[in-house]
Amino acid sequence: MILRYDRLGVEIPAGDPDPAGAGAVQELMGGRFGEMSTLMNYTFQSFSFRGRNELRPFYDLIANIAAEEYGHIEAVGATITSMLTGADARDIVANGSSAHALKSGKGVLPIDSSGAPWTGDYVFSSGDLVENLTHNYFLETGARNGKLKVYEAVDHPAARALTGYLIVRGGVHQVAYARALELLTGADLTKAFPMPRIPTDKIPECRPHLERGSHLTLYRFTPDDYKEVVAVFKGTHPETGEELRVEHPAPEGFSWPEAPAEEDVFAPDYDPGEIAEIAQKLRKDAGLTGDVGMRAA
Amino acid sequence: MILRYDRLGVEIPAGDPDPAGAGAVQELMGGRFGEMSTLMNYTFQSFSFRGRNELRPFYDLIANIAAEEYGHIEAVGATITSMLTGADARDIVANGSSAHALKSGKGVLPIDSSGAPWTGDYVFSSGDLVENLTHNYFLETGARNGKLKVYEAVDHPAARALTGYLIVRGGVHQVAYARALELLTGADLTKAFPMPRIPTDKIPECRPHLERGSHLTLYRFTPDDYKEVVAVFKGTHPETGEELRVEHPAPEGFSWPEAPAEEDVFAPDYDPGEIAEIAQKLRKDAGLTGDVGMRAA
Amino acid sequence: MILRYDRLGVEIPAGDPDPAGAGAVQELMGGRFGEMSTLMNYTFQSFSFRGRNELRPFYDLIANIAAEEYGHIEAVGATITSMLTGADARDIVANGSSAHALKSGKGVLPIDSSGAPWTGDYVFSSGDLVENLTHNYFLETGARNGKLKVYEAVDHPAARALTGYLIVRGGVHQVAYARALELLTGADLTKAFPMPRIPTDKIPECRPHLERGSHLTLYRFTPDDYKEVVAVFKGTHPETGEELRVEHPAPEGFSWPEAPAEEDVFAPDYDPGEIAEIAQKLRKDAGLTGDVGMRAA
Amino acid sequence: MILRYDRLGVEIPAGDPDPAGAGAVQELMGGRFGEMSTLMNYTFQSFSFRGRNELRPFYDLIANIAAEEYGHIEAVGATITSMLTGADARDIVANGSSAHALKSGKGVLPIDSSGAPWTGDYVFSSGDLVENLTHNYFLETGARNGKLKVYEAVDHPAARALTGYLIVRGGVHQVAYARALELLTGADLTKAFPMPRIPTDKIPECRPHLERGSHLTLYRFTPDDYKEVVAVFKGTHPETGEELRVEHPAPEGFSWPEAPAEEDVFAPDYDPGEIAEIAQKLRKDAGLTGDVGMRAA
Amino acid sequence: MILRYDRLGVEIPAGDPDPAGAGAVQELMGGRFGEMSTLMNYTFQSFSFRGRNELRPFYDLIANIAAEEYGHIEAVGATITSMLTGADARDIVANGSSAHALKSGKGVLPIDSSGAPWTGDYVFSSGDLVENLTHNYFLETGARNGKLKVYEAVDHPAARALTGYLIVRGGVHQVAYARALELLTGADLTKAFPMPRIPTDKIPECRPHLERGSHLTLYRFTPDDYKEVVAVFKGTHPETGEELRVEHPAPEGFSWPEAPAEEDVFAPDYDPGEIAEIAQKLRKDAGLTGDVGMRAA
Amino acid sequence: MILRYDRLGVEIPAGDPDPAGAGAVQELMGGRFGEMSTLMNYTFQSFSFRGRNELRPFYDLIANIAAEEYGHIEAVGATITSMLTGADARDIVANGSSAHALKSGKGVLPIDSSGAPWTGDYVFSSGDLVENLTHNYFLETGARNGKLKVYEAVDHPAARALTGYLIVRGGVHQVAYARALELLTGADLTKAFPMPRIPTDKIPECRPHLERGSHLTLYRFTPDDYKEVVAVFKGTHPETGEELRVEHPAPEGFSWPEAPAEEDVFAPDYDPGEIAEIAQKLRKDAGLTGDVGMRAA
Repeated sequence: MILRYDRLGVEIPAGDPDPAGAGAVQELMGGRFGEMSTLMNYTFQSFSFRGRNELRPFYDLIANIAAEEYGHIEAVGATITSMLTGADARDIVANGSSAHALKSGKGVLPIDSSGAPWTGDYVFSSGDLVENLTHNYFLETGARNGKLKVYEAVDHPAARALTGYLIVRGGVHQVAYARALELLTGADLTKAFPMPRIPTDKIPECRPHLERGSHLTLYRFTPDDYKEVVAVFKGTHPETGEELRVEHPAPEGFSWPEAPAEEDVFAPDYDPGEIAEIAQKLRKDAGLTGDVGMRAA
Repeated sequence: MILRYDRLGVEIPAGDPDPAGAGAVQELMGGRFGEMSTLMNYTFQSFSFRGRNELRPFYDLIANIAAEEYGHIEAVGATITSMLTGADARDIVANGSSAHALKSGKGVLPIDSSGAPWTGDYVFSSGDLVENLTHNYFLETGARNGKLKVYEAVDHPAARALTGYLIVRGGVHQVAYARALELLTGADLTKAFPMPRIPTDKIPECRPHLERGSHLTLYRFTPDDYKEVVAVFKGTHPETGEELRVEHPAPEGFSWPEAPAEEDVFAPDYDPGEIAEIAQKLRKDAGLTGDVGMRAA
Repeated sequence: MILRYDRLGVEIPAGDPDPAGAGAVQELMGGRFGEMSTLMNYTFQSFSFRGRNELRPFYDLIANIAAEEYGHIEAVGATITSMLTGADARDIVANGSSAHALKSGKGVLPIDSSGAPWTGDYVFSSGDLVENLTHNYFLETGARNGKLKVYEAVDHPAARALTGYLIVRGGVHQVAYARALELLTGADLTKAFPMPRIPTDKIPECRPHLERGSHLTLYRFTPDDYKEVVAVFKGTHPETGEELRVEHPAPEGFSWPEAPAEEDVFAPDYDPGEIAEIAQKLRKDAGLTGDVGMRAA
Repeated sequence: MILRYDRLGVEIPAGDPDPAGAGAVQELMGGRFGEMSTLMNYTFQSFSFRGRNELRPFYDLIANIAAEEYGHIEAVGATITSMLTGADARDIVANGSSAHALKSGKGVLPIDSSGAPWTGDYVFSSGDLVENLTHNYFLETGARNGKLKVYEAVDHPAARALTGYLIVRGGVHQVAYARALELLTGADLTKAFPMPRIPTDKIPECRPHLERGSHLTLYRFTPDDYKEVVAVFKGTHPETGEELRVEHPAPEGFSWPEAPAEEDVFAPDYDPGEIAEIAQKLRKDAGLTGDVGMRAA
Repeated sequence: MILRYDRLGVEIPAGDPDPAGAGAVQELMGGRFGEMSTLMNYTFQSFSFRGRNELRPFYDLIANIAAEEYGHIEAVGATITSMLTGADARDIVANGSSAHALKSGKGVLPIDSSGAPWTGDYVFSSGDLVENLTHNYFLETGARNGKLKVYEAVDHPAARALTGYLIVRGGVHQVAYARALELLTGADLTKAFPMPRIPTDKIPECRPHLERGSHLTLYRFTPDDYKEVVAVFKGTHPETGEELRVEHPAPEGFSWPEAPAEEDVFAPDYDPGEIAEIAQKLRKDAGLTGDVGMRAA
Repeated sequence: MILRYDRLGVEIPAGDPDPAGAGAVQELMGGRFGEMSTLMNYTFQSFSFRGRNELRPFYDLIANIAAEEYGHIEAVGATITSMLTGADARDIVANGSSAHALKSGKGVLPIDSSGAPWTGDYVFSSGDLVENLTHNYFLETGARNGKLKVYEAVDHPAARALTGYLIVRGGVHQVAYARALELLTGADLTKAFPMPRIPTDKIPECRPHLERGSHLTLYRFTPDDYKEVVAVFKGTHPETGEELRVEHPAPEGFSWPEAPAEEDVFAPDYDPGEIAEIAQKLRKDAGLTGDVGMRAA
């Protein structure tokens, strides 16, 4: 089970509408190497983990990284929706992903940059722990490749902030799986870092995260579990030589960006004021006070 | 972001291996009306919710139910993996879902009962709040139909415990979305309850949950957010007339069922003892004490 | 069985070539909420209707609406083919749906606006009548949403005439399913009308149909069957309060728009005159007189 | 537009429940060479036919055969639903197509024998008339192959009656497209008849149709159109040497087979009597008299 | 088994970057009628050919044409990769197939012009020889249609050289399958040539191949097998009346076009010089001399 | 371009018909880790290899392994077709992959063990050489896992002979990619061998290949190219410590197993004798002598 909280791991800056960019960023959501894939691979591997007790440190590692990945689909989702705010429906159809105008209300969907839906076929869960870890390492390297390619192809500030964040956090998972594999087999994949071979600190949007030491830190995204990750996530970082560490809790995070109404696609309604009024009446009836519709303090 | 904890919402009883049953229960995971669909529909609707502040009670409702659904894919996952424990690979190929033997290590996959993968095409997120709520109500009724059909077709105790639980919890979501729609439009879908028209209390495996009042209760699956659900989830239950309520935190839950090694599919390894030994050494090096591999207290 | 007649339910006006618009209108053909979906959902529900005799009014309703939907795929098909007349192959590849140039001969295909094919996965047919009606209501509201979004995104006169027509006719089906559900369960979904909440009469291309009372009328598309629809389609229209009615036969309809040869995509041939000559000779041999190739009077 | 009438082209005999057979017959519905494919190929070719006036005899041929194919999906649908009547849900899951129990209410779905949905990808509509006719000939031969294979693999009387009928009727379409191609190009594909090379009269279930001359007859499925088919469908039958002919109207047809309630899958309801009662009340209110729920005379 | 040699059947001229054109040419790779389809249809038909010995000339024909088709996917692959050299990632996302920038390193993928992957569903292999030959003839005519449409829609010199070559070579296969069918059944499909009805010699890029007699020649792509093709591939060419012939070996072919590094997509690396240096050291260690990295003489 | 020769890399022993086993072996053909995937991944990576000259040893390695993989799809194809010889159509539908009876003529198809078609989505070709090699290593380990699982689940002698062969040959490719990665990055994945951790020599059907040294040998499948593989494929075998080697030509191979006619699925015809007679006449006309239909000497 999970507890969800209404915060994002990265601050998504505002920018101009960018339908083409939003379409490209969908690759990081619904593509084979997008965040849906990292989330669901680790999630399903945790569901079918055999020998959980005997191999607790590895179970904890996979289950805990799965938890962080949910936050990553949130971050990609917030970015895409934000990049579509203010876009013209015609412009979306002509230059972006037509589904953003014709299926959603200028919002993210679980599709890739070609408009193809994410599929469970992207989940690998063989049951064999070493095999799964090999896969996970490969998946994270494919994901780093994908993030860097989107970084090159889209210069919207939200997309850049997102990819900077995901590159650093995905890098931690890449290290984690390489280290796990090394501890089980002796094969040292960290020698192949970084992969693609672009030093992370060359990317301006990664630097604030590096300065905070985010690249060294596995956060436990759990109230009180997955403590045995410390038995695997340790040693030094392959790029910097600094000591790896496990922290709890994760940083507090950031508010979701504004997503104002877009009346031409009826989101949240053809006449948003009308349903907002109903909502305010319901809030009042329920005794909810404070600023209108703000996060309850 | 989320915090994940290593507990299940329902206790999964042990039983004999049941490959055919496990294949059928996959419908509740990866089918159009399975738990992947409820999870991802509400998750993506929360990502692209426009007018979040003005419509906070509705946003909170959808975002919070999304959080519970993650626990539901866990419960289905634990059930299927458990039903496959001890099954013979040949028997799985002949009578079950061949992917359970040939792709996974006798573990759940994000597929339906025909072996087709779950797809992002199952996500509806139009941006229009009333439209989305109408969809969500329909999705929950389709899901109730699916759970009841699996209940009829599979008599393994784990499958029965699972469906009993999901029917009750899904019923709460059905009420929630019907009520939300009623408050916004006046259309009262609760008159169509139960749908399918089988009274929930006729199902033995639902009764323990009914007795605990689970059918009346929306739990907030969040450390401290989504408080405005109270403005929507209120009034009486359409089947029983009892008062609906919001509670926090959710019940503590249950341990995951055992999932011992299955050596003929190399899960977690061809020689599980060998890697278990490595894991124990790593635990010791990390100063982890207490029972071997148990949940750290 | 059916009798097909060579007429369209709506007049499709000519306009300039519009490859991008034609690509967007494909959403109304092959999208999840396109006319292929409404046609095939009701068609398959009629094939697997259990208790047909006991529930004749409901069977007749679904089977008869299925019949009208075939006319709707015709209307969408004629529109898209017409919008592609005269388009340049390069322009189609660059700005439209490349399949229109590379797979078809500047003609409609059973795909959506992303180029993905329509799939039988979009058909819901649970066997449970109330469940199916709930689905059908939801499907029609999703379809209305889709039509309105295409209306916003495409301003070609053929697309506008088409969507104006489909919004009014789909509205009749929305009322029909809501009323059926109300009669069976008491749940009154018509209170949620219109959905999306744009009054139909605000749309100029809908007005001629409203003036003819088309929004109030269920036509029986059958020589002599489905007479029991009158037991369900009755009462007043939720938006206007006018009395609903059943009529037979449906209006006569309109000719298909011209679809002249497009030689650069070899439709109907690289040298259309040559095969036209063969056709005329065959007509003559068969004793067909009157205007060349016109509809036989 | 179409007029639909509540009759089937072939009488479907009753028989024992046969879930495995019903699963196999799905190939004739949703497979690449199933009736959905013949229906939709000709339907879409008629939508994007360029030079309709100049090539009227060919347009009429394709549009008219499309009309007959709708009756064929009805016949397959009625057969599959009928073969599932009385089947046990567990037996369906174990030996048939699990979707018949878990998705539908023991009714047909637009899937193939592997459970994969029919897809618009199966439609070929190149715009080039000779190319389309070549395709259609090939499609009909593939369909004949498929029907014969199902005939071999399933011995349920409904399946046999269905395939006997479809083989004869599909044979007419095979001749029609071969003749059309011959008239346009001189290439005589009728020399390859029958294809597969099993004489049609060796199949007992085909013989009643042969005796009626159904194999020689193209029926016009239209109130008053498609009259120019006579310019193409003429000459002698390649297997028998008899004269081909066009007739109007088509034979009257047969009633749909009974499809009684199946309560364990809630079709049409968990308590069918209850909703039947509502239906009868509605009928009475509407002044519908005569036998309860029978086809209105 | 095969022997592969590092040559192409056609010379691919250089040209400017053309992302939109490259996206369109993908139809010839991964589309239903692309070269993956011709390759895999004949390959799988050879795998499941029953009665191989008794029907050796037909087996040899299919197996040998399969061998040539591998060379065709190479030619399409080289063309697309070449057309992407020097393209800007943003331009690819905006005007081409986004996968070329976001999934590959400006290289070909097994997708069609809409970005949809090639699928095994495109393979027809019924087991019935006459049926398979009918299919193969139809496939080759569909392929000719597709090549001509790409020719019309893309004017990049590489695309033109490619299509000129493929039209001529595909024409040979069209003749081969038509002749095989004629010899088995008497049906003479060569009367429908050319299909589409554009004379091959009207296409400038076909003429050099016609002048060399390539349109008359079936090459045996085998060291020493498939000799019995001579029993089928014989007679005169339907367009020119010249004598058909079988030759061995095939012409030597051409070098692959240059495919220099594209650093912004990390192909072959973010710092290509670095890994090239490693490669040269490895070559030296292995005693490989001669020009750096050239084809070993 | 390729030269194909009519031999298999492994001898396929005869056995009883085994429809269920044949269905399971399809996983090795059309599954994500089947031989279609290894073939097409390396083939497409060779098509889009950038910096071919500078990195010739790595290009040669990938292009040459691609060539061997074509032989592997042949071996899987021959095995499946062989296992279906003599099977009853009803038995195939009930216990095997229904497509083997209803789509093919008891022959292999490009599908997986669930009947889902192979898809181009399984091809990874990022353009980044180190990334591609990481993928290829992972793909080969997933493939070894899949082969071993099929070995456990199917005991037909043909399936066992096939998997024994593929495990050894795939092992060579696993070593090759691990070594290539090690030479480029220093990361030594061979320490993880064998993966899954079952020593290859424990599998009886692998032993004959080990005794011949097949596990140490990379064959060059080319008349005269890909010579620079020696710069990469070198050093010792991770499991045995023996020296790796490159050989040319590959062993001669074996005849394809008999695949006699199956008349109930019309393969190669409803009346195979009739078309065999035509074939013999054609052979005679062409002056082909020697044993009837045997491989021409």
